Amino acid sequence: MRLRNKPGAKETIANNPQYILTDASDWKGRWDERFEKKQPIHIEVGSGKGQFIVGMAKANPTINYIGIELQTNAIISILEKQLVEKLPNLQLLLVDGADLTEYFADGEVDQVYLNFSDPWPKTRHIKRRLTYKTFLATYEKIAKPGAELHFKTDNRGLFEYSLASLSQYGMVLNQVWLDLHETGLEGNVMTEYEEKFSGKGHPIYRLEARFTDKV
Amino acid sequence: MRLRNKPGAKETIANNPQYILTDASDWKGRWDERFEKKQPIHIEVGSGKGQFIVGMAKANPTINYIGIELQTNAIISILEKQLVEKLPNLQLLLVDGADLTEYFADGEVDQVYLNFSDPWPKTRHIKRRLTYKTFLATYEKIAKPGAELHFKTDNRGLFEYSLASLSQYGMVLNQVWLDLHETGLEGNVMTEYEEKFSGKGHPIYRLEARFTDKV
Repeated sequence: MRLRNKPGAKETIANNPQYILTDASDWKGRWDERFEKKQPIHIEVGSGKGQFIVGMAKANPTINYIGIELQTNAIISILEKQLVEKLPNLQLLLVDGADLTEYFADGEVDQVYLNFSDPWPKTRHIKRRLTYKTFLATYEKIAKPGAELHFKTDNRGLFEYSLASLSQYGMVLNQVWLDLHETGLEGNVMTEYEEKFSGKGHPIYRLEARFTDKV
Repeated sequence: MRLRNKPGAKETIANNPQYILTDASDWKGRWDERFEKKQPIHIEVGSGKGQFIVGMAKANPTINYIGIELQTNAIISILEKQLVEKLPNLQLLLVDGADLTEYFADGEVDQVYLNFSDPWPKTRHIKRRLTYKTFLATYEKIAKPGAELHFKTDNRGLFEYSLASLSQYGMVLNQVWLDLHETGLEGNVMTEYEEKFSGKGHPIYRLEARFTDKV
């Protein structure tokens, strides 16, 4: 779904460099400095309109969050929320998830979230899936050894693919949920999609996996 | 579900040692000799009434199958089918799946099937689940290096558990199905449970995983 152009989005982004960056090369290895406190850094790759990352930042003040999103018209919604909330532990980054090694030093990140990522259902688009091995290698490089990846989606095909892709990459599954809202998860923060699709009775799939040294 | 005692079951089993064994220690390392042809050996641990293993043996004459089942009143149903079919590539074994290393030599088995295994939903019974690590170690010992485990079930909790258990054991997931009858699988042979539960619209979960040397 392409979002409508929001008038003035680019200006709002340019006027708020304290919360959002469009080129973060200068901050590689220095993300701690952009937060009020030095504490673990969790990133979400593909934050959409940000209900998850904003909710997580509010619920967990001892974690620093970075929401990463490629689409201006999506990330502007997160920025608008942040301009109201002014959360000291939330930063936004308007870049392509494929380029994260340009913006983060090795081991700078403590945890990675993927939520309702684009399923790219056609086989010829497999390399665009955020759980494809090249993306996993990117996350592994910028994450601490043994860091966790938490992923949820309502898309069965993407989840089936991702379980196998992570496993074949050498990651270990800590836990898997095949109907998150039936089983329940303490502290679960819902995304916009999750509210919509779980409300329709679709199962939400979730996994927690960790990088290992076994690869 | 405990099956009703079938009158004469023990006698029928004792009278057909060409198809069924209750103690196979003597055949450890010599299973090839019990089949008409020397070809790959696939075992099913927990064969129930045998619709799967009999169907597989009929469909795949170039594979030798061994159906393993602990309950006399279940395996007698498989034997009755086999007394009609007389399949040269099907053997039955009335033993506990936990003791397989007593009956198979290291690397004697080419592939392992688990179908609709007892979910043992209580945490205190976790060690009884056929995808618990001690069972995986048993399968790995009697299977060839890199052998595959194929598992299907309609039980969400058992499947969630098994994905994590296999991964933590060091197995790699080749492929995962979260709604087998929606996606389809060429050559799928249904078990009795599978017919019943997929008919009711329940999703059937399936995975193919392989043992690795990484453990």
